[in-house]
Amino acid sequence: MRIAIDLLGGDHAPEVALGALEQLLQLHPEWEYLAVGREEELARLPKAKQLLPVACGSMMAMDEDVRNLLRKKDSSIWIATELVKKGEADAIVSAGSTGAQMTAATLLLGRVKGVQRPAIGTVLPTLQGGRLLLDVGANPDCTPELLLQFAQMGTTYAHCVLGIEKPRVALLANGTEDHKGSKLTQAAFALLQESSLNFLGNREGRDLLNGEYDVMVCDGMSGNIALKSLEGAIAALMLMLKEKLSANLLRKLGASLIMPGLRELKKSMDYQEYGGAPLLGVNGVSIICHGSSKERALLRACEVAAQCLESRFVEELGRAVQ
Amino acid sequence: MRIAIDLLGGDHAPEVALGALEQLLQLHPEWEYLAVGREEELARLPKAKQLLPVACGSMMAMDEDVRNLLRKKDSSIWIATELVKKGEADAIVSAGSTGAQMTAATLLLGRVKGVQRPAIGTVLPTLQGGRLLLDVGANPDCTPELLLQFAQMGTTYAHCVLGIEKPRVALLANGTEDHKGSKLTQAAFALLQESSLNFLGNREGRDLLNGEYDVMVCDGMSGNIALKSLEGAIAALMLMLKEKLSANLLRKLGASLIMPGLRELKKSMDYQEYGGAPLLGVNGVSIICHGSSKERALLRACEVAAQCLESRFVEELGRAVQ
Repeated sequence: MRIAIDLLGGDHAPEVALGALEQLLQLHPEWEYLAVGREEELARLPKAKQLLPVACGSMMAMDEDVRNLLRKKDSSIWIATELVKKGEADAIVSAGSTGAQMTAATLLLGRVKGVQRPAIGTVLPTLQGGRLLLDVGANPDCTPELLLQFAQMGTTYAHCVLGIEKPRVALLANGTEDHKGSKLTQAAFALLQESSLNFLGNREGRDLLNGEYDVMVCDGMSGNIALKSLEGAIAALMLMLKEKLSANLLRKLGASLIMPGLRELKKSMDYQEYGGAPLLGVNGVSIICHGSSKERALLRACEVAAQCLESRFVEELGRAVQ
Repeated sequence: MRIAIDLLGGDHAPEVALGALEQLLQLHPEWEYLAVGREEELARLPKAKQLLPVACGSMMAMDEDVRNLLRKKDSSIWIATELVKKGEADAIVSAGSTGAQMTAATLLLGRVKGVQRPAIGTVLPTLQGGRLLLDVGANPDCTPELLLQFAQMGTTYAHCVLGIEKPRVALLANGTEDHKGSKLTQAAFALLQESSLNFLGNREGRDLLNGEYDVMVCDGMSGNIALKSLEGAIAALMLMLKEKLSANLLRKLGASLIMPGLRELKKSMDYQEYGGAPLLGVNGVSIICHGSSKERALLRACEVAAQCLESRFVEELGRAVQ
C-alpha cells in the first residue's frame, strides 16, 4: 500500500503526522508513505527508503472557508488527494479540515457510480465497541432516498472494515416506535423496510452509545448535533469529575487510587482507537481524522485505509448502491 | 395557588407523587393540591385540609399511542388538565406521557393567541446552571417562522422563570459560523438576526452543556436527538465509571474516598433540580416532568408552576409572540 499523508492537517500539525510516520515505519515497514508538506516540514522527515517527500505550497486552515480550496491547488490536502487520483498513492489520510478533505475528494476522485452524495461516517466508541454513525455533517439537507443510500454505504463499510457479517441498520429518530420521526425519517423508514438491508427500525439519541446496532443512519444535521452532543457531554463530565476529585486531600488520595480505572475509561471512550471517519461514496480511499488527533489516531487511520483496500471497499460500495 | 397533580404519571407512579405531596404539604402549606387518581391511589393520600382528592377512571401508559387520549377522557391526565380549564386549578404537574400531556393541554387549554404550535422546553443542567433547550420533541417538522416563535417563547420563559434580564438566544446548528446549517436553520438565522431578540448566532452540540447561552432553539427532532444523546452519554459514562471503580480492592477503596465528590457530580448533572419541562404556548400552566422523576423533581415542578403564575408567564408569552 502506498499512502499519502497530509503533514499539515490537524490542530497539532506537523508534529503528530511526523510522530505517526516514525511509528508507522516501525510497525508497517511493508507500506510506502508519501508525506505531503512544505519545505520546512519535509526537512524534518525521518530518513527511510519507504518514505517519499512530496512538496506542497500552502495549507487549508482548520476553520478556513472550503471555497478557498479552489484557489489553493498547491495546498497539502489538494496535492495529497491528487496523488490518489493520479494513481501514485492508494489512499489518503489527513487530520485537517473535514470540509476541505471532503471537497478535494469529491472534486478530484469523483463519486462512485450510483452515489448521489458522499457522506461522512464516524465510528462511535460505544459500550459494545465501535459502531458507525452517518452522515455526521456532509449533508445537512437530505431526502429519504439519500438516507437509504447512507444505509447501503454504511452497511458496506461495517461489513468490509468492521468485519460484521450482516450489519444491523437503525434510523436515528425522536423515539423507537415505528410511527415516530419527522416527515424525512418516516419516508426513509418505509424505504429501509422495503430494502434488503438488516433494518432494526427507529432508535433514539440515548441508544447511540449502547451499541445495540451496527450502522446508525441520519441526515448530516442530526448526526452532527448527536456526535457533538456526545463529545460535549463526555468533555463536560470529565471536567466536572476532575474538579470534584481535587476538591480536598482525601479525594485527591482516592483519585490517585482510581487513576488506572479513569485512564481505562478515557481510553475506552477514545475515538482515536477507531481511526478516523471514512468518507463514504467517493471513488477512492480518503480517511478523515479528528482535528485533535494524536499519533495513535493517524496510525489507526492508516490501518483502516489498508482494510478498505484489502476488502475492496470502494468496489463493494458501488455494488451496494446499484 | 391550586395545583392539580397527576398521581398516575411516570415510571414510579403513584409512589413518587404521593411522596412529593407529603413533602409539599410541609414545605408549601399555603398551596392547595388537587390530587387526581383512581380509588386505590386516593385511599393512600395523606389527610390534610389543603389536599383534595379528585377521582379518575383510567390512565395513559407511558408508551401508549397519544391518539387513545380522545377515548380516555376519564384518564388522570385529561381530568387534571380539565381542572385547569374549568378554573378549579391554576396549574397541572405530571410525570406521565409527554405526548398525552401535550395533547391534553393543547385540546383543553388551547394555544395562546398568536402561537402557531406549542413547544416543549427542557432546562439542561450545564456547567453554568440551568439553560433552556426547545423544542425537544413536540414538532419534528418545523418552519423558520416556528423557530423564531420558539425563540420568542423561550426568551419569555428564561426571563419570567429563570430570572434572566435579556436572555441570550442561540440556534442549534452543525457549526458556529454564520453560513452553517440546513436550509431550515439558515432561514431561521436570518429571521432571528432581524428580530429584537438577543441573538448570539449558531451554536453546536458541544456547546449545549457549556452554558454560554440562555435559550437554545431547534426543531423538535434535533432537540430530541441532542437531549437524548446527552442523557445517553452521561448514563454510559456513569455506568463505565462504576464498572472501572469496582474492578479491584484498591479502586474500591479509592472510590469510597471520592464518593461525596461523585454524589455532588451526579447532583449537578441532575435534571430533577430544575423541575421539569414547561409546555410553552398553551393557554395555561402545564409542567411536564421526566418519566423517571423522583419526589424532588415533582416538588421543583410545583415551584416552577408557582413562578409561572407569579410572573404571569402565559400573558407575557402572548405579548412576545405578537
